[in-house]
Amino acid sequence: MSASFRSTAAQLSYGIVGLGLMGGSLAKAFRASIVNACGAQGRIFACDRSAAVLVQAQTEGVIDGGWQPEAVHEMLALCDVVYICLYPQATRQFLLDNASFFKETAIITDIAGVKSIVADGLSGVFASGADFIPGHPMAGSEKEGYAHSSAQIFYGRNYILMPQPENSPAHIAFLKNLVTEIGFSRIIETSVETHDRKIAFTSQLCHVIASALVASAEDCHITEFGGGSYEDLTRIAMINAPLWTELFLENRDMLLSQIDAFRAELDSLSGYIKSGDAEQLMNALENVRERRSAMNRLETSA
Amino acid sequence: MSASFRSTAAQLSYGIVGLGLMGGSLAKAFRASIVNACGAQGRIFACDRSAAVLVQAQTEGVIDGGWQPEAVHEMLALCDVVYICLYPQATRQFLLDNASFFKETAIITDIAGVKSIVADGLSGVFASGADFIPGHPMAGSEKEGYAHSSAQIFYGRNYILMPQPENSPAHIAFLKNLVTEIGFSRIIETSVETHDRKIAFTSQLCHVIASALVASAEDCHITEFGGGSYEDLTRIAMINAPLWTELFLENRDMLLSQIDAFRAELDSLSGYIKSGDAEQLMNALENVRERRSAMNRLETSA
Repeated sequence: MSASFRSTAAQLSYGIVGLGLMGGSLAKAFRASIVNACGAQGRIFACDRSAAVLVQAQTEGVIDGGWQPEAVHEMLALCDVVYICLYPQATRQFLLDNASFFKETAIITDIAGVKSIVADGLSGVFASGADFIPGHPMAGSEKEGYAHSSAQIFYGRNYILMPQPENSPAHIAFLKNLVTEIGFSRIIETSVETHDRKIAFTSQLCHVIASALVASAEDCHITEFGGGSYEDLTRIAMINAPLWTELFLENRDMLLSQIDAFRAELDSLSGYIKSGDAEQLMNALENVRERRSAMNRLETSA
Repeated sequence: MSASFRSTAAQLSYGIVGLGLMGGSLAKAFRASIVNACGAQGRIFACDRSAAVLVQAQTEGVIDGGWQPEAVHEMLALCDVVYICLYPQATRQFLLDNASFFKETAIITDIAGVKSIVADGLSGVFASGADFIPGHPMAGSEKEGYAHSSAQIFYGRNYILMPQPENSPAHIAFLKNLVTEIGFSRIIETSVETHDRKIAFTSQLCHVIASALVASAEDCHITEFGGGSYEDLTRIAMINAPLWTELFLENRDMLLSQIDAFRAELDSLSGYIKSGDAEQLMNALENVRERRSAMNRLETSA
């Protein structure tokens, strides 16, 4: 990253709305990489329902000041960059409720895992000139809350940005530099609709499958018979139920379509197994191996 | 492990039939932990179709001698412990073809991932007194062959032993010591039937799911949108098609029953999503989280 980006970014004030796993991790990453002790003029602020979390983060030196939600407009008035780290519906509601409180030059972004319900129809809401650029950092943990946050979770991960027609190119470039600086290794720019379709597959379908796999275990001692596969497939089943209920339902049509596509392939494989058709089964598995290898090759060459 | 086990084990000769990923890893682990250079009288031998692999393993100091399949009886005559590391059908065929060539005191075991087709009806085959104890090391890799073998893959893994009524308790105890010495951390003793039912779930079903998930991806660029979940769920889809075709078909009824149970849970979750029933969906996900936590707790206390 350029030295000029670093020196600019270090002078700015960052506001994190929601200091949970993701908000906390972003705050720690900004502190570690952007606004650190070496003479920086910038500040990191946060808003959270929990006064205890704000006190903890300030005591740890992660944030320079904290606000509870009823006073968030005081924080927004100070922030050049605002990261909204709430659940999807709450993210949209926050944007609508606080549209007039952002700085006129603010860059606003979010982390919600579904995007059309967050971002559609917001054009013109920010009359002041503040710029909302929807985003989705493809990082996380099966552990929740500020207590599990870490600046390390972003390293080598994908970041999806969904720039809107009204966004300033300079603001988009700034965000790309910012997330690169904290460790993301690949930034994909796409539309809200493409995001929701792809994420229905790579993220939501995987969580549905992991959940069904845990639900169908005959008992909870099953991992005595595990060799790594079951553990890998169900790590994400330590699921945050309220969040994922919202993500599944707010991307319902896309997700159901991906579930149907998966079920068709499952039916096809189980059909070959049922009929004992070794040749068809072997061909299908060879194709799977070839596709998975191609995915690896594309990753390696990315 | 006791010093007396170590000194006994170091004097024995070990034969590995099939020097692929698993056979090669076992040979390397025996060399590292059991029969090493410190004055040991024991030997590690191997049989493989590939003369090149035998030469490589001997050059690397992993084995002390190699035989191709047509001369395997020469090797078996020397071996106190024989590990058959072949595909399931080939394992059974090897046992039947070579029953009279094992030493009278030999401990014989295997690694096949389905067991009833390997082990059923073998009682009395080994007239000489050789003792076949079916086993399944729950370790492996999505990479194949001796070139990817490693003594490290067994560390912290589960080992399933399926002792038969005719097996000598001393031989069973020896095998348990042996696999503990090379890194396995938990040994489960169970029946062939229970093994096949549990493994249909923890291993085969997971491979079917991972394969269906790769097959249903809309393209091979999908990992651009990955955040770890998809990668975790499909690592094992780099599948060895001939081996898994055999494993799936030879455990067909058990596997189909597990696929049905999984599909019922998938249908249930997708039904809640389709109907938009947030309360039922949230309850189901809370149950999943509780079950997955219970599995973790049982693991930790094991």
